[in-house]
Amino acid sequence: MTWIKSFASAVLLASFELFTVVSVTHAQSPIPLNVMPLPAKVQRAEGALKIDASFTIAFAGYREPRLDRAGQRFLRELHRQTGIVFFSPAKSTGPATLTIAADHQSKPVQELGEDESYTLDISPAGARLHATNTLGILHGLQTFLQLVAIASEGFAVPAVHIEDQPRFPWRGLMIDVGRHFEPVEAIKRNLDGMEAVKMNVFHWHLTENQGFRVESRKFPKLQEFGSDGLYYTQDEIRDVIDYARDRGIRVVPEFDMPGHTTAWLVSHPEIASGSGPYAIERKWGVFDPAMDPTSEKTYKFLDDFIAEMAKLFPDQFFHIGGDEVNGKEWDANPKIQAFKRSHKIKTNAELQAYFSGRVQDLVTKHKKTPIGWDEILVPGVPKTIVIQSWRGLDSLTAAARMGYRGILSSGYYLDLGWSAARHYAVDPLGGPAASLSPGEQQLILGGESCMWSEYVSAENIDSRIWPRNAAIAERLWSPADATDLASMYDRLNAESERLEWLGLTHRSFQRLMLQRIAGSGASLEELSALTDLARALEHQKDYTREESAASEPTSFTPLNRLVDAVYPESEVSRQFSVAADQYAASSCRDSALAAQIRAQLIEWTGLDARLQSLAQRSQLMKEASPASAALSQAAKIALEALDEAVKGAPLSPEQRKSQSDALNALEKQAHGSQLTLPMLPALQKLLDTASAVGACTR
Amino acid sequence: MTWIKSFASAVLLASFELFTVVSVTHAQSPIPLNVMPLPAKVQRAEGALKIDASFTIAFAGYREPRLDRAGQRFLRELHRQTGIVFFSPAKSTGPATLTIAADHQSKPVQELGEDESYTLDISPAGARLHATNTLGILHGLQTFLQLVAIASEGFAVPAVHIEDQPRFPWRGLMIDVGRHFEPVEAIKRNLDGMEAVKMNVFHWHLTENQGFRVESRKFPKLQEFGSDGLYYTQDEIRDVIDYARDRGIRVVPEFDMPGHTTAWLVSHPEIASGSGPYAIERKWGVFDPAMDPTSEKTYKFLDDFIAEMAKLFPDQFFHIGGDEVNGKEWDANPKIQAFKRSHKIKTNAELQAYFSGRVQDLVTKHKKTPIGWDEILVPGVPKTIVIQSWRGLDSLTAAARMGYRGILSSGYYLDLGWSAARHYAVDPLGGPAASLSPGEQQLILGGESCMWSEYVSAENIDSRIWPRNAAIAERLWSPADATDLASMYDRLNAESERLEWLGLTHRSFQRLMLQRIAGSGASLEELSALTDLARALEHQKDYTREESAASEPTSFTPLNRLVDAVYPESEVSRQFSVAADQYAASSCRDSALAAQIRAQLIEWTGLDARLQSLAQRSQLMKEASPASAALSQAAKIALEALDEAVKGAPLSPEQRKSQSDALNALEKQAHGSQLTLPMLPALQKLLDTASAVGACTR
Repeated sequence: MTWIKSFASAVLLASFELFTVVSVTHAQSPIPLNVMPLPAKVQRAEGALKIDASFTIAFAGYREPRLDRAGQRFLRELHRQTGIVFFSPAKSTGPATLTIAADHQSKPVQELGEDESYTLDISPAGARLHATNTLGILHGLQTFLQLVAIASEGFAVPAVHIEDQPRFPWRGLMIDVGRHFEPVEAIKRNLDGMEAVKMNVFHWHLTENQGFRVESRKFPKLQEFGSDGLYYTQDEIRDVIDYARDRGIRVVPEFDMPGHTTAWLVSHPEIASGSGPYAIERKWGVFDPAMDPTSEKTYKFLDDFIAEMAKLFPDQFFHIGGDEVNGKEWDANPKIQAFKRSHKIKTNAELQAYFSGRVQDLVTKHKKTPIGWDEILVPGVPKTIVIQSWRGLDSLTAAARMGYRGILSSGYYLDLGWSAARHYAVDPLGGPAASLSPGEQQLILGGESCMWSEYVSAENIDSRIWPRNAAIAERLWSPADATDLASMYDRLNAESERLEWLGLTHRSFQRLMLQRIAGSGASLEELSALTDLARALEHQKDYTREESAASEPTSFTPLNRLVDAVYPESEVSRQFSVAADQYAASSCRDSALAAQIRAQLIEWTGLDARLQSLAQRSQLMKEASPASAALSQAAKIALEALDEAVKGAPLSPEQRKSQSDALNALEKQAHGSQLTLPMLPALQKLLDTASAVGACTR
Repeated sequence: MTWIKSFASAVLLASFELFTVVSVTHAQSPIPLNVMPLPAKVQRAEGALKIDASFTIAFAGYREPRLDRAGQRFLRELHRQTGIVFFSPAKSTGPATLTIAADHQSKPVQELGEDESYTLDISPAGARLHATNTLGILHGLQTFLQLVAIASEGFAVPAVHIEDQPRFPWRGLMIDVGRHFEPVEAIKRNLDGMEAVKMNVFHWHLTENQGFRVESRKFPKLQEFGSDGLYYTQDEIRDVIDYARDRGIRVVPEFDMPGHTTAWLVSHPEIASGSGPYAIERKWGVFDPAMDPTSEKTYKFLDDFIAEMAKLFPDQFFHIGGDEVNGKEWDANPKIQAFKRSHKIKTNAELQAYFSGRVQDLVTKHKKTPIGWDEILVPGVPKTIVIQSWRGLDSLTAAARMGYRGILSSGYYLDLGWSAARHYAVDPLGGPAASLSPGEQQLILGGESCMWSEYVSAENIDSRIWPRNAAIAERLWSPADATDLASMYDRLNAESERLEWLGLTHRSFQRLMLQRIAGSGASLEELSALTDLARALEHQKDYTREESAASEPTSFTPLNRLVDAVYPESEVSRQFSVAADQYAASSCRDSALAAQIRAQLIEWTGLDARLQSLAQRSQLMKEASPASAALSQAAKIALEALDEAVKGAPLSPEQRKSQSDALNALEKQAHGSQLTLPMLPALQKLLDTASAVGACTR
């Protein structure tokens, strides 16, 4: 058997082998290869390694407490995944089912670009995981856990040889805890998720107009007046950093300035550009308050503050934000206008560049490397900074051409509700970046998904991040030619299940929220209908939710509606759309597909009626009624068109136009509940199919 | 409106009012009264109190940190239940939506028989909770939370006046952490559940043949060699005790002796009756090892040990076990035989009584009151001890007649898998105890449900305790005439949902276990079929599971099978049985019921076929196949009989006998998967109905 370079071929070959040569004990049933992100190289072999209570691990080579903890965590996870009890603790030497060998330690403070590679060999007789340092071991253990599957003879991992390393050194998740605070517990759950998919940077967006979320001991009024009591103590921060380090994850704090700073200015109006007083912002959007870039008080304050935070956060990188300053307070302040004139600063962008330069000097003085959003890239900025691009690949590419390092976040905004497939298609080296020279491409360090939190609570945050974030993690780790969507979704669904063993709540949260909506008097039948409704719909995409809200949403708005309970990507609708595509391609000839599509349409058609009594009793259900009615009506339109077509009466062009318009109107109706009908394109396609003369009547 | 004494009448009246007079803002929809346990007195009034972001609480009267924490916890729970964000912390004075007034503190160490009463008044304008001390406030806050419901205008609590106090002062839950260890987290979840249903004693069964689960600093080898590393540190114990105290719960530790002590003897064979060496027991049952009751070494050891534990656990009561000594080691030890002869001790029971007396003296010396299982009650035992009856009401009644205090556990063994209704029917003052004099009845302090843990892991323990434990809690709190099963199940289901807001996992655990059984390649359709199967079945009852096991179960046996994932009581089967009863009573005349029953039978009939491919792929599903086939076949038999009867061909007596036998054989077949068909009596009843000539043909 030869080396397989590309993961795509690897999966194809793996599938081929599964159904031809490779068998797991007595050729009973194949074991799927649900690794996500896909490894750089995969080579399958015959047979499998059985997982039972006799399973043991042992450490060969370098050993440290972090590895021991990783071993214990690994056994705990293996127990959760299989239900098997492993009484034996990890051994330091001697034979074991899985031998773990690291050559040496990783850096005391994890660094950008450290070796993260590992090799994993599994045969029916045992397994060996090797890595140059601890980081690779952490990654390899996750790969092993992903390979564990139930087969006809019990739990097993397929025989395989994997050589793996990441494509990009910076693979991050940003969580905004400013707009909605997230308890430490929620942060830790998501660090577990990041480890599972080999992400290595947690970008902690700690300050916002709506909240200042970190304890400052030098300036305790910051959190006292800026957080509603919802902030992390320094002990909690250190605990999270340790937790992340155990999982091979760096923690990069962000202190967004000079805009997005209302919560700072509540207690420290002396560094503001306006006259105050300021109050914690309760609405969403871009606001006027900004730090005063012309006052030395501001820099004195920031010098002290950055000194404190630079000590608290050990990572080399220090994020200074820099996005979305509207300049209104600057324009309104005569002193600032005078400063601009006297310093020959013509625009507010230049003024921000001046501020940014001063702050970067402070960050550098405190031995950190600044990172900031697009806006901080202005002429003359030192080449050491890193640009985080929310504007897009064009700005990232331009930065690389100028010699600046950058990471991509445009295309990875999880709050926009895009499908996993859409995020998956975004490549930090795609589009304009593809034309960069190899040397310039090296400057593009990777990317970060971003969880902005206007509509995110501790209850539903996991569902807004997972499982879609795993697709982004794969884009940043796996070879660039990993583009097979069917394979991606299969593995995404498998990993999504596994993430719940780790304690993530991205699926389990939903039942509780639906029960809240239904109320405790709801019957099993009503709950079942509500679940079917929730699983079919998605929340509105991009920034359209605000447009549909009955009243302006604020941080007081309860996140307890159906829109908060649906998954951002409906797997039911996705599978329906795949089936509808195949059915259309078969011109209605595939009767099994026809039955599947009809069954789904019939279920949706009936949902609204089944939910009428609930809508009478529960205000939260009543709010979802427009979407419920829209779904049932839309399904009915498609079903009737198909039925007529099968009877030999395809839609006329006029009928087709009118029904198509009706579907679009129903989509608008669903917006009344801030929801969207994700199967709408598939329904339109079914109308097309039902309009083709004679297509459905063979 | 007048006082309503009995809860049963209260609920009837409440229902009556709901549909006639009482309305919640604009007569849209009634708010159910889902309080469990039912209060002693309930009086409903018109209207409801709206719950929105403006909701506040304030403390009037006595205040202490425990009350403040309870207020914060209350707001957190209210947030979880409603999704509404409450920014305002509890106030100490001034107007608030809910005013909380305690007259004075409760005892520093919670005592048996303290006043636990409270009064709760809710009107559309506000609410007031009053209690003589903190304990009543804790209970009243739970009642308030149970009253919160979603209605047509949003969240609200109905206007109501409640005066409440418990029927029994000892309302306990025992958890056996010896056979399977439970992490602190699982214990705390269950303490939350206990608080929710006003239970006030956590009985911690800490030592067993299979594990010694508490850190002794005097004898550290006990946990070092007796626990596989699975034990509670003293810090953890103190943390749990504090946690329980915050929730109005006493913690009574049990150190079971002289039997059930193998795990002690591993490291301390010098106090054993046999020659050793001993190893942690891995099997279930009654075993030979016992402490040496004739050696002064034993009492010296126990004196030191009890001294240490008496300090660690502040509760007045100290449980010394005393159950199930088989005496084999005593019979085999010549020294012990000689002791018996020299001390004129004729039987092993007398020898145990001697041991028990010595240990009770030690407990008393360390200022504690001994409590033990039935066996410790022997002639001459001081009247201060408390008897915990696992043998039944006869022995409890006999003890009371002799002047001993007792609590009932017979009839409350959760591990036996009984229905909530069956537990609910067991009354500590029922049966023979009903004939006790009022003074003797006072000696019966209450009861304790018992969670013995042969088949209980951290993963499924909540489901083995909840929601059924709430029915026992109601029996121990509410007036004796609370016996309406329909009302009980309605409120049980509502409380079951609410318990998951508190973090209990008794429902959510199942989906993960079913996904494990199905494997990550399973389709949504396969998972749905597996869920339907799991929801229909129950695990085998009483001690019959062992008989069906393929190999002898031990503590190494993974608890990952379908038998471990089903609920002990199937709500689907219970509702089906209720419908089948009503249908039989209507002699097939009720067509809506007929449709409901047929739909359920058709679903069950088809399940096995839908699970065939899974059974090919997954060993855990394959193990469940006998039960799956049995359910589908049993449903088919009932369905066909009904169909024939409707056609005018009722079953002949011979056919009826043969089909009835076939059903019984299918029940046995289900045992092949250690499962049972809980709807079998209902199916038999349907056969009866289908056998009545002409009954189904009108």
